[in-house]
Amino acid sequence: MRALAVYDGQVRLLSDAPEPTCAPGEVVIQPLLAGICNTDLELVRGYYNYEGILGHEFVGRVIDGPSDWVGKRVVGEINVVCGQCDLCQEGNYTHCRARTVLGIQNRAGVFAERFTLPIRNLHPVPDALSDEQVVFVEPLAAACQVLEAAHVRPRDRVVVLGAGKLGLLVAQVLRLTGADLTVVVRHERQAQLLAQWGIRAASLADLPEQQAHVVVDCTGRQEGFADALRLLRPRGTLVLKSTYHGLPQADLTRVAVNEITVIGSRCGPFDTALRLLAGGLVEVTSLIEGRYPLAAGKEALAAAAQPGRLKILLTF
Amino acid sequence: MRALAVYDGQVRLLSDAPEPTCAPGEVVIQPLLAGICNTDLELVRGYYNYEGILGHEFVGRVIDGPSDWVGKRVVGEINVVCGQCDLCQEGNYTHCRARTVLGIQNRAGVFAERFTLPIRNLHPVPDALSDEQVVFVEPLAAACQVLEAAHVRPRDRVVVLGAGKLGLLVAQVLRLTGADLTVVVRHERQAQLLAQWGIRAASLADLPEQQAHVVVDCTGRQEGFADALRLLRPRGTLVLKSTYHGLPQADLTRVAVNEITVIGSRCGPFDTALRLLAGGLVEVTSLIEGRYPLAAGKEALAAAAQPGRLKILLTF
Repeated sequence: MRALAVYDGQVRLLSDAPEPTCAPGEVVIQPLLAGICNTDLELVRGYYNYEGILGHEFVGRVIDGPSDWVGKRVVGEINVVCGQCDLCQEGNYTHCRARTVLGIQNRAGVFAERFTLPIRNLHPVPDALSDEQVVFVEPLAAACQVLEAAHVRPRDRVVVLGAGKLGLLVAQVLRLTGADLTVVVRHERQAQLLAQWGIRAASLADLPEQQAHVVVDCTGRQEGFADALRLLRPRGTLVLKSTYHGLPQADLTRVAVNEITVIGSRCGPFDTALRLLAGGLVEVTSLIEGRYPLAAGKEALAAAAQPGRLKILLTF
Repeated sequence: MRALAVYDGQVRLLSDAPEPTCAPGEVVIQPLLAGICNTDLELVRGYYNYEGILGHEFVGRVIDGPSDWVGKRVVGEINVVCGQCDLCQEGNYTHCRARTVLGIQNRAGVFAERFTLPIRNLHPVPDALSDEQVVFVEPLAAACQVLEAAHVRPRDRVVVLGAGKLGLLVAQVLRLTGADLTVVVRHERQAQLLAQWGIRAASLADLPEQQAHVVVDCTGRQEGFADALRLLRPRGTLVLKSTYHGLPQADLTRVAVNEITVIGSRCGPFDTALRLLAGGLVEVTSLIEGRYPLAAGKEALAAAAQPGRLKILLTF
């Protein structure tokens, strides 16, 4: 089958990737749409030493497995977990010590004609939601995780740093809290989308120092951490959605003296994301800025890597 | 009057420091004992651009002010606050935007024959507690702040990194939680004290990676942050008691991916610290490793700066 993979630091379009085989409890899925995420771009750059088929954001159809699943349109959680380790036993499944992660860690991804996932990772998709909507469930769930980690109150002043693919979803989720929300933008297209959603956009220079109760860093750049510390009031909360290349310098003394709380945040609740989409509480399709067939996967990755570019989808 | 101060990066023993004058609501205090803290040593090294009389840990006697206060033996909170700013109004007094801090920020300290504090900063000391005990109230309150910031449960595995003056107090406070507590030590004297208190000591190399629920960094060294991240399990909590010279490199990607919570922690509740001392729940006097008269203040600071040295007191 065809697949888009990374090997030896090179993206390769494979024409003869091996067919996936199901472990017990798994199904074979044919993707309908897949999204390109910044993590995919980082994997291509070799940040995490991953080799194999890329991709983890998808909506697909089950084509092989138990008969009550075959034919279903699904999205799927990306962490494949053991259920046995201490972290699983305590309900911290996304941190399973023995996990594989779809297209990220020891598990072939979704930029392929077929792939597998355990049934317990799947969420059937309501008919009322389009493929173009639900392909955003994984990143939208990650955006929802911000509110799992931090208690954001209606009276809080909240700043989102970085209005990229993830930042724009985080902003929409944070808008639901009723907090006084500002998103720092660097591109006109981001400002337009935020205006359309009724969310305030600003440039970093316009924001006062030490006033924000909560700052969410979605920049992916190490300046994001320093900027966030400047904006946060004492006892404020910094939610880190970013990963950073290398080891950024961080003003940890300021964290201690100002009693800042820094909370890392990664994968989130799929059911919540599906509910927000079904209720029309979050708008995602206007983030789509390009569609490429799998055969043009290299061009799709190159397009997704352009500064300011929002969501690029792969079609199958 | 005599005082120990820092000017132009030099410690000076002054013989003609100006007498302090009381603002409304303040009293004049004569110190009975004062403690040397790592912050004092950092001020001497010029980390915070402070110039003036040093010192903030004290027990003293009120010698001038309202008659119902004169003669009382007191300890005192070090943040002198406005009561008016947004942070004060919300009860975050220690973060007052207009604060001065005793011997640290725009306010003459206690390494002097006399100094002033507002009455509202004072806590009278019960007769049953000795000067040698209550001179530890300020750092013990800071140790208590760890538990204000982080919820430590009896089932948690907790590691304290850095068994210095502050770390040994933090360890004793954490012992009260019933958690499975280990303190990382580098000096024999620290191990002896911990054994005496029934607290487990270990070397860093003996501890397993990614197992601790809570790590408190009291090292004051930037390796402390990296070591803490190595020890913490996913979704663990890192409490930063340390301040660090410069901008340490920090693996913020690990914070994000492992969903670590980092909480800065500074000044704490004096009333709680007094209660712990009064109840015999924390033992402090065995931390005392030297006493110097104010006139030998330079020698006292030099002694306190020796690696592994615990509490050095000034007498008056």
